[in-house]
Amino acid sequence: MKITIRRATKDDLIQIIRILASDKLGKLREDLSSEVSENYYAAFGKIDKDSSQMLVVAENENEEIVGTMQLSFIQYLSYRGGLRAQAETVFVREDCRGKGVGSKLMMFALDEAKQRGAHLIQLTTDKQRPEAVRFYEKLGFNASHEGMKLHFNLKSEEDK
Amino acid sequence: MKITIRRATKDDLIQIIRILASDKLGKLREDLSSEVSENYYAAFGKIDKDSSQMLVVAENENEEIVGTMQLSFIQYLSYRGGLRAQAETVFVREDCRGKGVGSKLMMFALDEAKQRGAHLIQLTTDKQRPEAVRFYEKLGFNASHEGMKLHFNLKSEEDK
Repeated sequence: MKITIRRATKDDLIQIIRILASDKLGKLREDLSSEVSENYYAAFGKIDKDSSQMLVVAENENEEIVGTMQLSFIQYLSYRGGLRAQAETVFVREDCRGKGVGSKLMMFALDEAKQRGAHLIQLTTDKQRPEAVRFYEKLGFNASHEGMKLHFNLKSEEDK
Repeated sequence: MKITIRRATKDDLIQIIRILASDKLGKLREDLSSEVSENYYAAFGKIDKDSSQMLVVAENENEEIVGTMQLSFIQYLSYRGGLRAQAETVFVREDCRGKGVGSKLMMFALDEAKQRGAHLIQLTTDKQRPEAVRFYEKLGFNASHEGMKLHFNLKSEEDK
């Protein structure tokens, strides 16, 4: 499978949301109804114009979107005023898993992080995905931290 | 102890860095030498002018800085175009621990996150600090994720 990683455009958005929504955990929190799509477009606009954010897609040889990832670059005081890269919403289309798409996305993330001068790259991955933890460990990530979340609207999330 | 939480100013920076550098893990990565201090000032400038970032301090009744925390607000596509709050470098001065300073910082974080419309707040905490994990769990955080880090300059970090 020939994979190209590139910055996402507004035209990719529907395919990206479909990938998020078809995932076993993502389907609990995404919504493909037309009433909600405005939210996604508004979010895309904010991400796209922020130079500290980078939404990317993996495209196959048929110009189909088969993966996505958001990179953030955050300036901190710690580590002597260091910049951190952070990867989030790393998703690969279900029928394209196990074919190196995730590795290509992460290689892109590592390169971009180094180019921008980040001293580390971080991410959190759900403990319900042990295969993802192993995948990141193979790339050199260390599960040194607990990734803790507090949902403000947990009840309504669970109702869905 | 009367604690006020407020946005950090440039004048707080030396006290903030001293708190980071006196911590058992922080002392491995911070540097109080004058040659490095320019880096901290440059980092502060970038954080301070970015409306998605908020560096705060906890101040006691003697106007001493006894704690610090950085809040970031990150726009994602997931969760129907949701905004996330993220807390990082949450530190309390060693001689002021166990006196509610951390709780005040986190209460501030939760309020600010809700005010800005975030649907969740997240953070990672080093597994070498089990007492911190329990602290965040009491506040309602769930250690649902692995917090994974990859340091690009791991060797030089270990040499220090």
